[in-house]
Amino acid sequence: MFVYMDHTATTPTDPGVLQAMMPYFNDKFGNPSSVYSFSKESRSAIEQARAQIAKAFNAEPSEIYFTSSGSESDNWALKGTLEKSIKLHKGDHLITSKIEHHAILNTAEYLEKYHGVKVTYLSVDSEGKIDLDELKNSITDKTALVSIMFANNEVGTIQPVKEIGNICRENNIIFHTDAVQAAAQLNIDVKALNIDMMSISGHKMYAPKGIGALYIRNGVRPENFLHGGAQERKRRASTENVAGIVGFGKAVEILKGRLNDDKAKISKWRDKIITGILEKIPHAKLNGTRGDERLPNNINFSFIGVEGETLLLDLDYKGISASTGSACSSESLDPSHVLLAMGLKHEQAHGSLRFTLGRLTTDEHVNYLLDVLPEIISRRRNMSPLWEDYLKSKGEL
Amino acid sequence: MFVYMDHTATTPTDPGVLQAMMPYFNDKFGNPSSVYSFSKESRSAIEQARAQIAKAFNAEPSEIYFTSSGSESDNWALKGTLEKSIKLHKGDHLITSKIEHHAILNTAEYLEKYHGVKVTYLSVDSEGKIDLDELKNSITDKTALVSIMFANNEVGTIQPVKEIGNICRENNIIFHTDAVQAAAQLNIDVKALNIDMMSISGHKMYAPKGIGALYIRNGVRPENFLHGGAQERKRRASTENVAGIVGFGKAVEILKGRLNDDKAKISKWRDKIITGILEKIPHAKLNGTRGDERLPNNINFSFIGVEGETLLLDLDYKGISASTGSACSSESLDPSHVLLAMGLKHEQAHGSLRFTLGRLTTDEHVNYLLDVLPEIISRRRNMSPLWEDYLKSKGEL
Repeated sequence: MFVYMDHTATTPTDPGVLQAMMPYFNDKFGNPSSVYSFSKESRSAIEQARAQIAKAFNAEPSEIYFTSSGSESDNWALKGTLEKSIKLHKGDHLITSKIEHHAILNTAEYLEKYHGVKVTYLSVDSEGKIDLDELKNSITDKTALVSIMFANNEVGTIQPVKEIGNICRENNIIFHTDAVQAAAQLNIDVKALNIDMMSISGHKMYAPKGIGALYIRNGVRPENFLHGGAQERKRRASTENVAGIVGFGKAVEILKGRLNDDKAKISKWRDKIITGILEKIPHAKLNGTRGDERLPNNINFSFIGVEGETLLLDLDYKGISASTGSACSSESLDPSHVLLAMGLKHEQAHGSLRFTLGRLTTDEHVNYLLDVLPEIISRRRNMSPLWEDYLKSKGEL
Repeated sequence: MFVYMDHTATTPTDPGVLQAMMPYFNDKFGNPSSVYSFSKESRSAIEQARAQIAKAFNAEPSEIYFTSSGSESDNWALKGTLEKSIKLHKGDHLITSKIEHHAILNTAEYLEKYHGVKVTYLSVDSEGKIDLDELKNSITDKTALVSIMFANNEVGTIQPVKEIGNICRENNIIFHTDAVQAAAQLNIDVKALNIDMMSISGHKMYAPKGIGALYIRNGVRPENFLHGGAQERKRRASTENVAGIVGFGKAVEILKGRLNDDKAKISKWRDKIITGILEKIPHAKLNGTRGDERLPNNINFSFIGVEGETLLLDLDYKGISASTGSACSSESLDPSHVLLAMGLKHEQAHGSLRFTLGRLTTDEHVNYLLDVLPEIISRRRNMSPLWEDYLKSKGEL
């Protein structure tokens, strides 16, 4: 059985999306910047996709800029805003959080190291939520940007985005949110939430890999990130990935049409798995929160006394694809920076497992996981029978 | 008749390339960074493509980094090298040329404006070639990078890359070349040419849009451009565009296999068109050089007394897709910066037309162009019968 429970790492391209893309590879292949009529089809296909995406998030088409990924969008938002702000002597301070994706954290580190940017990393509580008072208290007259992710990719905690948006708007500070995960699961209205910039990614939403977008509210003017040709209204150079853009537009349209139904179905499975694990497996710690403040598809547990990596291999042997955290850092053996920020001890952060549901999930998969996982954990714990004593002696149980 | 003579702007995706890509959209869709066995197929597909591309240019697989486009590769090479060099107090001087693609020119301008980089723009002769003595004389102990394009996208002039490589190596300066056009037409050996970094782009080589690569010689360490996850051996963040990468590898392999045959066939057509135009159309000025120092597929003429844009529309009406210069700046009404640097007057630079041949070209297309073009030029010139007198009075004829 192939049980894919890692929809947060990536999703398959929807067949309808792929079908929409196909003509743009070797039939309507014209460069959208060319003058002749043949290339008009590429141009208008891009504008249709832009309108599809704008509509899904209540933005204007002129506010959607296509990029190659969510990571590029994050890089653009942070570097473009801070570099421009420093250039205009308007402030060199960035506020973000300790639990951001590495596309934010490593970009912030680059800005510190190369451009003297001062970065405040907001802490989070045990459920992974930032403290709005800490945000307010961190704002200075040098603050150029607040970048807080919409929902966390590891533990699924949804931030109080509306309140963050209001605080930023009141203080006249640009608010960027990395919505790479949230946009695939939630209804987002950028106007209602006072979002100034928002990163999204195609391959988390059943579009192909290699396409993303940055929403930039009209009037907000970060410096360009990719310099060169006049594409994307002179703000993002490079010949457009026409097929990818068409696929992204179609994917967002499809996703939006079924989002509420999917959300209801998937969150039921999520809750069934969470409840099932808590009932069946001792010393299982749910990471993150429950209910509406958790992404509908996210399950994240620490199984104390067992290494997450070992569990992944055991699950893989049983046909289940899962993750210890973000795929982007899976080659690293460091414990999750998100779980550490939430106050977990190293032992617990190392023993975490993430299951993320989606369109490939079935009732059968959910039941299979609940059958297989308790056995796996139990077997591994029995291999090192002293783990309970050891952890008790360290005060971790 | 559909006569596509703009292969330099973009190319259709080769059917074999598309076929190679197809499994990676919704069958083998795993995130290459994931741990489970399912994602191994994505990982190994990427490494196969890396090996295919390395082999074609006599590089090591570990020297190929996938990006989203030639423009991104150019941005990375310039920004990454200069920012790192400035950080290490090793020099803030960039040498490039006046006829580079905008991905280089606008990045250089950004570096001047935002990072205090000193830029020398080498001039070119009437054929579009740089002067090696000017290059040598421009080098100072602050020079961190020389970036000279391999062959020009507008007029097809091939630079003395081997000599440039030697000069840079002797002076211990990093040499980057934008080979986005050249790599699609010529055999390139990065080791023999002493190239340290080289930008290439998929969609100029019958791979899809949205994929590119930067060759970085082992030992050369520009700062990263896209910060985030640990992909591409921690040097280029972002979930890999697996299907695009697979397609790019396959496209380069196919291209390499047929390059010499294509070159022979296409350069004959090129020469037939050039000779035909010179014979049939008065006051037609060939821009660039002839023979082996011109890209095999490039034809660029100024038709004095006629606007290039007008001719494009006339040609389009006859089913012929051509260009006035680079597609990336086709929305601009400025005369070509390349032609101006080569010493053409504004009138001549405005009246230029580029035809670029490739796999869609046939004998019939070549004959058709030579039938249709003289009529079009003649008709347009007859519409403003005083153009000869006017230009003579200005000394431009």
